[in-house]
Amino acid sequence: MEINAIQKNILHEVANLDSIPQGAYNIRANGESAARNTTANIDIVTKKDKPGIDIIIKPGTKGESVHIPVVLTESGLKEMVYNDFYIGEGADVTIVAGCGISNCGDQDSEHDGIHSLHVEKNARVKYVEKHYGEGDGKGSRVLNPVTNVYQEEGSYVEMEMVQVKGVDSTVRTNYAELKAGATLLIHEALMTHGEQKATSDYKVVLNGEGSSADVVSRSVAKDDSEQIFEVSIEGNTACNGHAACDAIIMGNAHVVAIPKLDAKNVDAALIHEAAIGKIAGDQLTKLMTLGLTEEEAEEQIVAGFLR
Amino acid sequence: MEINAIQKNILHEVANLDSIPQGAYNIRANGESAARNTTANIDIVTKKDKPGIDIIIKPGTKGESVHIPVVLTESGLKEMVYNDFYIGEGADVTIVAGCGISNCGDQDSEHDGIHSLHVEKNARVKYVEKHYGEGDGKGSRVLNPVTNVYQEEGSYVEMEMVQVKGVDSTVRTNYAELKAGATLLIHEALMTHGEQKATSDYKVVLNGEGSSADVVSRSVAKDDSEQIFEVSIEGNTACNGHAACDAIIMGNAHVVAIPKLDAKNVDAALIHEAAIGKIAGDQLTKLMTLGLTEEEAEEQIVAGFLR
Repeated sequence: MEINAIQKNILHEVANLDSIPQGAYNIRANGESAARNTTANIDIVTKKDKPGIDIIIKPGTKGESVHIPVVLTESGLKEMVYNDFYIGEGADVTIVAGCGISNCGDQDSEHDGIHSLHVEKNARVKYVEKHYGEGDGKGSRVLNPVTNVYQEEGSYVEMEMVQVKGVDSTVRTNYAELKAGATLLIHEALMTHGEQKATSDYKVVLNGEGSSADVVSRSVAKDDSEQIFEVSIEGNTACNGHAACDAIIMGNAHVVAIPKLDAKNVDAALIHEAAIGKIAGDQLTKLMTLGLTEEEAEEQIVAGFLR
Repeated sequence: MEINAIQKNILHEVANLDSIPQGAYNIRANGESAARNTTANIDIVTKKDKPGIDIIIKPGTKGESVHIPVVLTESGLKEMVYNDFYIGEGADVTIVAGCGISNCGDQDSEHDGIHSLHVEKNARVKYVEKHYGEGDGKGSRVLNPVTNVYQEEGSYVEMEMVQVKGVDSTVRTNYAELKAGATLLIHEALMTHGEQKATSDYKVVLNGEGSSADVVSRSVAKDDSEQIFEVSIEGNTACNGHAACDAIIMGNAHVVAIPKLDAKNVDAALIHEAAIGKIAGDQLTKLMTLGLTEEEAEEQIVAGFLR
């Protein structure tokens, strides 16, 4: 299967791919596998019972990466895909799992990926998920990704969840449960514009002694867009949980933040902060005295905030 | 109607009353009016259509107070009371509205008070509501108070919501809506022990330009008790909202905090912080080196925290 110019651009946006990536990869285009590579340590197997793949990473695999970008360029395509990651004991890998939709037609296009990460003892994973939409058709671009993360003792997972442009409707549902000594860091960066709607829902359950989670969301809501951010941290043992949500509101946008701390143990320490507000006037003034227009100044501030 | 010794103690606990208060008052004991006083500026009128009273405060009334404590000492008594406060333009008054239950019997006792405050332009109100329970009977002590606060332009309301002992089950529902330039401060202090359950729900709607709200809750959950704290601040215009929730967890207690920020306007600035944790070990050690037992040290820290 050939990758065309539009698809190449999407691959660049969601996975920073300008050429065939090193290491293991599986590129899915318009509902079909377009390219795949496995390595001695990372196997990729097509599921037989439902759409999707199993990514199996051998224990001790270090410094390797898996790219599994998805591109949709056909208008009206809707798909639900199940991808399971098995990350072996002591492995240290990077997973890049972006999805991009280019919809120039008038039918809705939708990709819903359900990613389950089974992270074995002392394994380390950097997981990057970028969402991107483009196309001037009337059909909307819809992404409803789900992640389920199961962390064994001493494992470390860092998740970068980015959606910066062009997705009309998204509901992101993320669940994680951590055993003893496991660590989870989540960084979300989100921007909505036009009439877009985005919901992010994170639920973290700290079951193991000494486990810790840090969930940080930064978002910008422009125009008439709407964002709902929900995060829930449950502490069932001696553990540390922190969640922070900072949102910049612009135009007629609407932002809702609903964090939840649930402490079920005397040794659970849970903290949350949230702030919603507009760009500070003095920041704008400073950049405008340097010669930027108000729009350029806003753009710079927003880009810095989401970086 | 006579006030007996048990009732006197409860009046002390919920309203700091050791003698007949100055100013206006209405003491309700076991479902009946036990004593009432009105002043030239503050009228108290029994409702005709349902249980409860209307408290009418003339515009411009300054430095006066209204005490409306409720005491229940009969086991098995359940009542729902509607009290409406009309606070005239430019008035500056203190309202003390505690409720105490002494239940030595084996039937549940319950008082549900629904308080509506209509606060006219530029009026200032300090509202104190204390809840207290005692008695070694098997019957439980239940309080489900509701407050609805309607603030006109430029008004100022300070609410002190205290429940420190002996209430087995409580659901506190508080709603406020603010017009331009109005200010609302809420301080909650809550302690639960044994098998007690307490839910606090605050909803503040900032409708008027320049309105502001500050909701601060401090709570201690001991033993097997359970607390749920919910606060929602909705900003519909240029306004400032802040909510903070600090909880100390002890024993096998369970604490849930669910704040919600809802920014519907670019000029709404909303902030929230929450923290749940146990008493810091070094604080305990410091007090114990001064000669206190661990229990005494804990008590001192808790008392200081809730003050």
